Amino acid sequence: MYVGIDVGGTAIKAGVVDENGSIIARGSVDSQPGSGAEMVRLMYVAMCHALDRGMISRDRVTAVGIGSSGLCDNEKGTMVYSPNIAYDNTPVREYFTERMDVRVDLDNDANCAAAGEYVVAGEGRGSFVFVTLGTGVGGGIIIDGKLLRGVNGGAGELGHTTVYPGGRLCGCGRRGCWEAYASVSGLINDARERGGWFAAQSEITGRTPFEGAAAGIPEAVEVRDRWIENVAMGVCNLVNVFQPDRLVIGGAISKEGENLLAPIRKFVSENAYTRGIPGLKRTEITAARLGNDAGIVGAAFLHKIH
Amino acid sequence: MYVGIDVGGTAIKAGVVDENGSIIARGSVDSQPGSGAEMVRLMYVAMCHALDRGMISRDRVTAVGIGSSGLCDNEKGTMVYSPNIAYDNTPVREYFTERMDVRVDLDNDANCAAAGEYVVAGEGRGSFVFVTLGTGVGGGIIIDGKLLRGVNGGAGELGHTTVYPGGRLCGCGRRGCWEAYASVSGLINDARERGGWFAAQSEITGRTPFEGAAAGIPEAVEVRDRWIENVAMGVCNLVNVFQPDRLVIGGAISKEGENLLAPIRKFVSENAYTRGIPGLKRTEITAARLGNDAGIVGAAFLHKIH
Repeated sequence: MYVGIDVGGTAIKAGVVDENGSIIARGSVDSQPGSGAEMVRLMYVAMCHALDRGMISRDRVTAVGIGSSGLCDNEKGTMVYSPNIAYDNTPVREYFTERMDVRVDLDNDANCAAAGEYVVAGEGRGSFVFVTLGTGVGGGIIIDGKLLRGVNGGAGELGHTTVYPGGRLCGCGRRGCWEAYASVSGLINDARERGGWFAAQSEITGRTPFEGAAAGIPEAVEVRDRWIENVAMGVCNLVNVFQPDRLVIGGAISKEGENLLAPIRKFVSENAYTRGIPGLKRTEITAARLGNDAGIVGAAFLHKIH
Repeated sequence: MYVGIDVGGTAIKAGVVDENGSIIARGSVDSQPGSGAEMVRLMYVAMCHALDRGMISRDRVTAVGIGSSGLCDNEKGTMVYSPNIAYDNTPVREYFTERMDVRVDLDNDANCAAAGEYVVAGEGRGSFVFVTLGTGVGGGIIIDGKLLRGVNGGAGELGHTTVYPGGRLCGCGRRGCWEAYASVSGLINDARERGGWFAAQSEITGRTPFEGAAAGIPEAVEVRDRWIENVAMGVCNLVNVFQPDRLVIGGAISKEGENLLAPIRKFVSENAYTRGIPGLKRTEITAARLGNDAGIVGAAFLHKIH
């Protein structure tokens, strides 16, 4: 039995997760983002709530995983820094292991989601790339069953590869990052800049261009297709670098399913460097399977990819 | 004792290589690129020449590595295809193992060079990215001591990531690949397009802009610096994705040393996604150490990264 804890600036959600990725019991508490130490205590409380509700004793838990925004140091078991939670090399593992005999792993949200998708997709060896399209573009890379962390835990910043030098300003302060084009925020910006039918909408979300395109609105088709091409171009870059066995696309927008995936697959099959070579195995490109529970389930499975 | 064989369209060069990467004895024969089977026989002949010259008996060789342009299947031990040698799923390993009791590994030239640089740089765990700047831009990625091959052996096509959508035509048939800008061919194109002082030169090579810049020619400074910035941008993309322990830049142009490396390091330190976070370990960026012998030495060390 594993526990996954999904730490956000508003709430801390915990779940007891079985081997198949099903959440057996849940617990939740409000965040106190102003104090790192208090946040750690609340992570523990959220876990206890979940265990109590499920009437599961602590000694049946073999691994606890904690996913949070920000940078963590899994070796030391600390949360180093987060832009929206007052971590300051806050010890997390220690707090848990002083209270129970358990393995504790920490990682950021994108790596947790990658862990969850990897496990529910059947694990296996080979290489796995997870791309999440949301407010930003994040990712996680799993090679031969291990998460690629890099020299400093900061690997996998797929969204911050430059693809339009001098282009649109990115949230990171640089120009032309893939994230500035392929995120849902980028899509919403595209729609606003396009105007026309979009200007008449009371609210523009990531779904708006897809809904408009489905209704045959030319501006919506144009915006949706250009955005998908920018997503696909970056996906194709990742395929050329990794040639992964599987590449999974997550984020709420991945619910668009084949409307999003089919053109990405087409772009990659027509543009990947290996496109001309017959008989080669190809990367399988699919949508994420875990929805809102990705943070909990993925955190619970961190021990499998660390 | 290892044997490395560097297979080109003109010559097949073999070397007996010791544990430190020193070549003890060499052999060479002309290529017969019109026949894959004949090429395999000649690889064996080149090895025998080297062993004979070094008066080394075949049973002292524990591993043979073969590096060639094109796509190989190291699992099956075959050369699948090359644009300039008539391979057609040509069995290579079988030919050697029928004649001697030895481990045989095959790979392409960029992966061989990565293997060589990795070993002479002291191996170690962690992650290692090799980028070679030549006619094209190639690369090899070694993670936790193993070469990243991907699902089909085609991983590491770092040069064919799009960084200028719709930009300059690349040799691969697409537009805007990093290779079209960061290769030495790209640099030569930059110089030709710039004209001015360059138009007065009898020949333009990759060294011309560096020599001109050293002599204070403004057009040369401009072309050199723009090219280096394009190289650095792609290197920074790789750093954001991998955060490797080490990134080594190879190809003849890497002999420019600090003229090339210092501005790349500066760009990465100012632009990598982790730039603002204090106290983090950073990727060490250095120039390749193996020169013309990279193919032989790297092939001899393939068994260490497969």
